[in-house]
Amino acid sequence: MIGRADCEALDAGDPLRAIAGRFAPGEAGTLYFDANSVGAMATDVPDRVDRHLAEWRNLRRRGWSESTWLDAPRRLGGKLAPLLGAAPDEVVVCDTTSINLFKALAAALALRPGRRRVVSQAGTFPTDLYVVQGLKTLRDDIDLHLVPDGEAIEAALDDQTAVAYLSQVDYRTARRLDIRRLTAAAHARGALTVWDLSHGAGAVPADLDASGADFAVGCGYKYLCGGPGAPAYVFIARRHHEAVRPVLAGWMGHASPFTFSTDYVPGPGLARFLVGTPSVIANAVMEAALDIWAGVDPAKVFAKHAALGDLLIRLAQESAGAQAIEVGSPLDAGERGGFVALRHPGGAAVVAALADAGVVCSFRPPDSIRFGLSALYHRYVDMWDAIERLRRILGEGAWRAEKYEKTKAI
Amino acid sequence: MIGRADCEALDAGDPLRAIAGRFAPGEAGTLYFDANSVGAMATDVPDRVDRHLAEWRNLRRRGWSESTWLDAPRRLGGKLAPLLGAAPDEVVVCDTTSINLFKALAAALALRPGRRRVVSQAGTFPTDLYVVQGLKTLRDDIDLHLVPDGEAIEAALDDQTAVAYLSQVDYRTARRLDIRRLTAAAHARGALTVWDLSHGAGAVPADLDASGADFAVGCGYKYLCGGPGAPAYVFIARRHHEAVRPVLAGWMGHASPFTFSTDYVPGPGLARFLVGTPSVIANAVMEAALDIWAGVDPAKVFAKHAALGDLLIRLAQESAGAQAIEVGSPLDAGERGGFVALRHPGGAAVVAALADAGVVCSFRPPDSIRFGLSALYHRYVDMWDAIERLRRILGEGAWRAEKYEKTKAI
Repeated sequence: MIGRADCEALDAGDPLRAIAGRFAPGEAGTLYFDANSVGAMATDVPDRVDRHLAEWRNLRRRGWSESTWLDAPRRLGGKLAPLLGAAPDEVVVCDTTSINLFKALAAALALRPGRRRVVSQAGTFPTDLYVVQGLKTLRDDIDLHLVPDGEAIEAALDDQTAVAYLSQVDYRTARRLDIRRLTAAAHARGALTVWDLSHGAGAVPADLDASGADFAVGCGYKYLCGGPGAPAYVFIARRHHEAVRPVLAGWMGHASPFTFSTDYVPGPGLARFLVGTPSVIANAVMEAALDIWAGVDPAKVFAKHAALGDLLIRLAQESAGAQAIEVGSPLDAGERGGFVALRHPGGAAVVAALADAGVVCSFRPPDSIRFGLSALYHRYVDMWDAIERLRRILGEGAWRAEKYEKTKAI
Repeated sequence: MIGRADCEALDAGDPLRAIAGRFAPGEAGTLYFDANSVGAMATDVPDRVDRHLAEWRNLRRRGWSESTWLDAPRRLGGKLAPLLGAAPDEVVVCDTTSINLFKALAAALALRPGRRRVVSQAGTFPTDLYVVQGLKTLRDDIDLHLVPDGEAIEAALDDQTAVAYLSQVDYRTARRLDIRRLTAAAHARGALTVWDLSHGAGAVPADLDASGADFAVGCGYKYLCGGPGAPAYVFIARRHHEAVRPVLAGWMGHASPFTFSTDYVPGPGLARFLVGTPSVIANAVMEAALDIWAGVDPAKVFAKHAALGDLLIRLAQESAGAQAIEVGSPLDAGERGGFVALRHPGGAAVVAALADAGVVCSFRPPDSIRFGLSALYHRYVDMWDAIERLRRILGEGAWRAEKYEKTKAI
């Protein structure tokens, strides 16, 4: 049996342990495991916000020419890129994940004229499928092929496939796909890849350039800690930059936005994937987090993240016999994404009871209790304390209380 | 000749004069006339931001279920609606102007199958045209017809016209179109209207429902004072809500976003025009401004705005003889939008010299110096002081200094 003292020893040897001090702790006594939903706030955020508000008050429109507002999408992208295994000019921070999925999918399809098939997963994050369904209202030739849970994606890739449109990590189980292997399989059929990294980036490697990935998108508010509804990002491999003609075209993506020409001329490289005017305050908040990311070694992040998940799983297994907990995520950290899913028939009620006991995690139907783990601010003892509280709640049956019967899955 | 004391008397009789105290003043001695670019900051913004950051720190993902984050796009839309002459359920706040133009144009085209013509203006805001050009990469059947400056738009509307896609206010001259008259003309041909209100909303009436308008969009950061890059908005007349199938489909627009169904089912009414997860902090900042708007009588706003513009024009005319200033905007307030454009061959250099003299305005090629006016925070004496400073700069030739030669048009 692993004891709390064992976990304390792991924390003492953690090369990233000082980083936790750069994040605001939240409510005293509460353990937050929703890095997969809303990551923690960098302690530097209030200063960044104050600085932005002073610029707004005093510069007004001159902020666009005299401050750092205009360049933020590319500057933030450059700071994020190493974590994704990409070059700084291959990532921009902008818009939302759904909108960036639309841009990337439409662009990838345009690079494969004559092919109609989009291969995705029946269990991909639902919004990813809604994006295809929306795009189909304009391109009714798209043949969306969904691979059922558990079946091999490779088998669905054929010579008519334009795009493999995949989530790196299953949002219910955390099962992780091998970006390199599936990208190679898609390329072997002449298809391109669009990866949704939302449940992986900031937790596990993406190695986009080394994997040969074509397009990727992801959200800024989960593991990346960019704040609730933070700007999302787009990666495009440099080899595609000049071939891409954006479907969502706007002045921020124009080669020369302040000449006000009538004709759209795409900006250099990834600049053309920008559309409208970005929220400057949202970018300022996001940058506080990205400045932390830019100062850590991604390899250390991924190693600690795997170790935290392994520990949580082992602690859960040690208490499983008595309490109907199952591990819903792969046991091998190499096959897991950013969270660990434990399964329990109590589902959402258990999550609500956990929150009242100071353990914030999230639920996804039918029975998945997700512990989103952050290598930046979680300690090993947090794993121990969380499982201890879960064990108590299940042992005492607290989750069966009437007040937990109607709980929302958010 | 109008004296400064006359302006002081106008301020004393201004029914909106107390509202100025709800906005942060900026640098001491500086007069800001860039309400058409970046409006002033509500004094309540720092408190709203602090409250949001506390929720982020302490609630994390529970902010989506336990705070007001999720409903913000519709709540903010409801607060904005009266200013646009719309019902609360006809406006949502979301995404950027460019992206909302894309949504609205695609939706309007889908409501007119078999028609291919989009009528717009050669002089509309460029990003509006980029949006059409981007959409054409997916719908190459679109026949974009641009009406040259000065020609009648009505003449271009024919039985093949699907959409009249128009800016309410010319971004160079502030010339304002009559939404009611042009909407009637479009409807008479069986076409729909998409209006870009960015340079009018918060300054002049749109009267969307009374005008019979179909779709409208606009930005939040100009006259509305939502902050640099604030969320934009979409209006759709209620009669179209259920017929619209969104092209940009995402989970925030789903009828039941937290059931995670594979199929997109559009949410009720305008909810379906939401796409991805919105920036909560950007919405919190925007709401501080909208709470001010919700407390003022739009008719008083429009009347004061017209009077401010009339005064600025008269003061400029009184000093025009000696100094090559021309009025570039309509003299009739009923034909003007949110700003007054003065024309001077010194163009951008004059704007830069004005900024150094504590008068912040903006430039648009070739020679337009735009004074963006806010009925919420401008005083009549501000008009007098600004023209006095302009007169001095032009009289002394300060704008001819070498340092002003290379200035940006932002």
